[in-house]
Amino acid sequence: MQIFTPVKSNTAFEKYEALINEAIDAVHKREHYTPFPEMPSPADYGEGAEAAQKAAFEAQLGAKFEQLLQSSNSWLESDEESPYTGKSLKISYPVFSDVEDYIKATQKAGEKWKLADAKERAGLLVETLHQLKAHFYELAFATMHTTGQSYMMSFQASGPHAADRALEAIALGYAELTRFADKISWEKPAGKYTLKMEKFGMNVGRGLSLAIGCSTFPTWNTLPGLYASLVTGNPVIVKPHPKAIYPIAIVVGVIQSVLKENGFDPNLVVLACDKANNQITKKLAEHPAVRIIDFTGSNAFGNYIEGLPGKTVFTEKAGVNSIIIDSVDDLDAMAKNIAFSISLYSGQMCTAPQNIYVPESGIAVKDGHASLEDVQKAIVEQTRGLVEHPKAGHAVAGAIQSKATMERVLKAKNLGGKVLLENKAISNPEFPEAQTQSPIIIELSRDKRDLVKGEMFGPIVFIIPTKDTNESLELASQAAREHGAISCSAYTQDSELMQKIALTMAEAGTAVSFNLTGGIYVNQNAGFSDFHVSGGNPAGNASFTNPEFVVKRFIRVQSRIFVK
Amino acid sequence: MQIFTPVKSNTAFEKYEALINEAIDAVHKREHYTPFPEMPSPADYGEGAEAAQKAAFEAQLGAKFEQLLQSSNSWLESDEESPYTGKSLKISYPVFSDVEDYIKATQKAGEKWKLADAKERAGLLVETLHQLKAHFYELAFATMHTTGQSYMMSFQASGPHAADRALEAIALGYAELTRFADKISWEKPAGKYTLKMEKFGMNVGRGLSLAIGCSTFPTWNTLPGLYASLVTGNPVIVKPHPKAIYPIAIVVGVIQSVLKENGFDPNLVVLACDKANNQITKKLAEHPAVRIIDFTGSNAFGNYIEGLPGKTVFTEKAGVNSIIIDSVDDLDAMAKNIAFSISLYSGQMCTAPQNIYVPESGIAVKDGHASLEDVQKAIVEQTRGLVEHPKAGHAVAGAIQSKATMERVLKAKNLGGKVLLENKAISNPEFPEAQTQSPIIIELSRDKRDLVKGEMFGPIVFIIPTKDTNESLELASQAAREHGAISCSAYTQDSELMQKIALTMAEAGTAVSFNLTGGIYVNQNAGFSDFHVSGGNPAGNASFTNPEFVVKRFIRVQSRIFVK
Repeated sequence: MQIFTPVKSNTAFEKYEALINEAIDAVHKREHYTPFPEMPSPADYGEGAEAAQKAAFEAQLGAKFEQLLQSSNSWLESDEESPYTGKSLKISYPVFSDVEDYIKATQKAGEKWKLADAKERAGLLVETLHQLKAHFYELAFATMHTTGQSYMMSFQASGPHAADRALEAIALGYAELTRFADKISWEKPAGKYTLKMEKFGMNVGRGLSLAIGCSTFPTWNTLPGLYASLVTGNPVIVKPHPKAIYPIAIVVGVIQSVLKENGFDPNLVVLACDKANNQITKKLAEHPAVRIIDFTGSNAFGNYIEGLPGKTVFTEKAGVNSIIIDSVDDLDAMAKNIAFSISLYSGQMCTAPQNIYVPESGIAVKDGHASLEDVQKAIVEQTRGLVEHPKAGHAVAGAIQSKATMERVLKAKNLGGKVLLENKAISNPEFPEAQTQSPIIIELSRDKRDLVKGEMFGPIVFIIPTKDTNESLELASQAAREHGAISCSAYTQDSELMQKIALTMAEAGTAVSFNLTGGIYVNQNAGFSDFHVSGGNPAGNASFTNPEFVVKRFIRVQSRIFVK
Repeated sequence: MQIFTPVKSNTAFEKYEALINEAIDAVHKREHYTPFPEMPSPADYGEGAEAAQKAAFEAQLGAKFEQLLQSSNSWLESDEESPYTGKSLKISYPVFSDVEDYIKATQKAGEKWKLADAKERAGLLVETLHQLKAHFYELAFATMHTTGQSYMMSFQASGPHAADRALEAIALGYAELTRFADKISWEKPAGKYTLKMEKFGMNVGRGLSLAIGCSTFPTWNTLPGLYASLVTGNPVIVKPHPKAIYPIAIVVGVIQSVLKENGFDPNLVVLACDKANNQITKKLAEHPAVRIIDFTGSNAFGNYIEGLPGKTVFTEKAGVNSIIIDSVDDLDAMAKNIAFSISLYSGQMCTAPQNIYVPESGIAVKDGHASLEDVQKAIVEQTRGLVEHPKAGHAVAGAIQSKATMERVLKAKNLGGKVLLENKAISNPEFPEAQTQSPIIIELSRDKRDLVKGEMFGPIVFIIPTKDTNESLELASQAAREHGAISCSAYTQDSELMQKIALTMAEAGTAVSFNLTGGIYVNQNAGFSDFHVSGGNPAGNASFTNPEFVVKRFIRVQSRIFVK
């Protein structure tokens, strides 16, 4: 007797079974693992692919985005504009004029998907990533000209790194869906006879999912929740940021195409675009049919989303990330690393450091001592050197995504602190109109600390002198508890202190990177190895990708039949 | 380099490692598994244990409960009274007059516990269950004379079955705490050189946990959350129902004793008793230090708990459980099974059936047809036979726990339906003062359906005639969606219909038991095999014990050190 007969329409699982098992193994071992090579290389992504996809990108500007297979009743020209050229992209996307239509279309498409089992779903979803590889260059250009990321970061973050995170979500989701026995022969001795039941387990998705994207990482931050909801059996409405639609539209188009090829309704995942002055996010989020919400964005909106009653909600909001400097082997190597971290994508990463805590009395360095001023000077000089470098400067800093961030940077010198390094435009020969600003570095002395509360999003950095490292740690952990934190960097040569910093920050929900001096930066969280956001402080309640991120998206129901 | 050095003070893990691994395996296989034998047998629980513990129980009445090792500043005589004798138990428990003192004491005790690793915690917690076995008979008497359960159910539910569920929570918690690598050598090829980091994982409990008990199953419903919070590193305040303290006090006393023996502060778990007219539950639940809440009880209070902002909450509330009768092999065998289910502990189990849906045109039975009246008569006669049986009647039905339930039963005949079987007192020669009522069975015809909305807790059963089984299923699934459901029973000989019922009810978050006719009842959910509550309908958001039940109680933080 079989209670549940899952839908079976393709062989994608067989094709990708080894990869899925490898990914599950990697999730648990947490060593280096990257199935999607992170460099834009013809060897990996095809000879001529870059030029062809650049041409596709250019042809898309000013045109309708035709790759979506979803139902719609009109076209909407988006608010997207390039931070590099200042020009509107003038791309139109298919939309429904009534929010209710997105709900109906996805729910209808979900009827078949929910009957597909974990293998079927996981196989098809990995197939979408495989096919997405053929769009990584276009994704890079689309990301660059919506977010302001440099070309290299755009390629890595929106392509391979986002695909890594998607695969991670599929792998952990698949592992969770299949971890309990599906068919159980239950036999209980009861004196003279034996009681018998056949039991059958079934996973039931919690229902319609809403993925709300952000303007700075439109695919990297959206794919984990999108794929986690899909693999666990839920249809998804993707509500992109009005200024960053094109990258995620490419992804949704590929998913819809694979769904259709395999006999599923492409409306299982729909893109629901809107304009900045007429957003539909709250209508969607508050709709009773929406059961799961993934959100990346501001604290204010994130707190609203978290407060919606009866929804399963995953958020990544803002945080104040700290660097604690206690003692260091090589002052310049540290300063160089910090300079890169604060300049990378002009401080617009959620992992970018903001507050640097340094003892007023200075720090121990190899063979001696560095004063507070020495430390400040080293960081300032390394930052100046980087941003003024004719090639590295704009390649690292990219452009500023929004007018609001631009204004915040330009006004930062008036905050009241002592400006150690002024912000200024970064020259970019290829894009002379690019909206850029180098980091401003401000000292906040003891009496000025209260001038700045919480996050100052963008290339704005504070050096905060403290009594000693204990006070630095206290301030860093307090900031994490009160305002959230997604990263923390610390420099110390004292192993006991290292343990204390790690424990104290862990209790404030923040992982610490110690003594980064080479080509690794605190901003970077690697798929399959680093958990991104802990869920343990106000910076967000979700973590890419821990078990909670997938198990909350479905329930397990186990029925049973008495056997005489 | 080692960042985290966990506390190590005992060898309990080595002692129980095999059992813990066996339990983890059982959790995943979901076959029959009971490490704690469920019969009160001298072979398993000691020659003379029953008599000795009955004496201990009798000596406890009217006395101070001295086994708790927690801090306190006064004694409180509880409101507990026996549903069998009508007499107050007059037991006093140690209390703090100020709620803040419970918070401080548990938080202080948590400082060392959080530094103990998963092995240390799991080992000690299994040791507490091992020692609890020596109190199973006292637990049975304590449960009987607070909840009104029969002696046999009291023994099983509060002793072995509760211990099974506790072990299940420990096992799954341990599995989750240890599933990811703790020490990772991360090496990433980067052209000419290799980037290296050592990474260290750490689990951080979300913080102080509050376990709010219920009056009917004071240990069975409380132990899963209590042990899940403890194994994941959190201190726990246990707030028992004012009418059912004694059973859980025994458990807390044993845990405190094991903690103390092993060098931990016994205040890691404290019992916080109150009086019905002066409850401290809301003060505790709303306290900012309380991060996790486990609750079993009413919908109204459960909804309040679920609505508290910023807390991790696990609830089991009320539901409307259905029986769908479509077709049956042996009508009397079915009726006998149903009679037992509705009489067991007088309908005071959260899994007890309430609404029985039967087609107006009757059902197919072996070799023929049974009319609606035939089905009703079979159920009524079997129920009457059971409750009037001089030995089985009171042994199955036990006593009614609360005055409110008693009043509800006594008034049920006035609801407006057609009474098919009247409730009446069940004779109990040993306890002539016992507060008892047999089930009332009421037919709610089509025009009377709206008379009853939601749950009628206690021995109140409705037979609801329907157009056909499709309508029965529609009504049962609607009741589950709107009012919650924890169990569903269905009788059908049609395998396609079986699949439809299983799927439809699964989507309403309810597991179905099919064709129960032997010595298994829909009320019973076995530890290690059946998930109790799905978390997918208003009957509760938690499930004993799925991964969500443990992973939400801690976060994973992974720090990293750059290696030159």
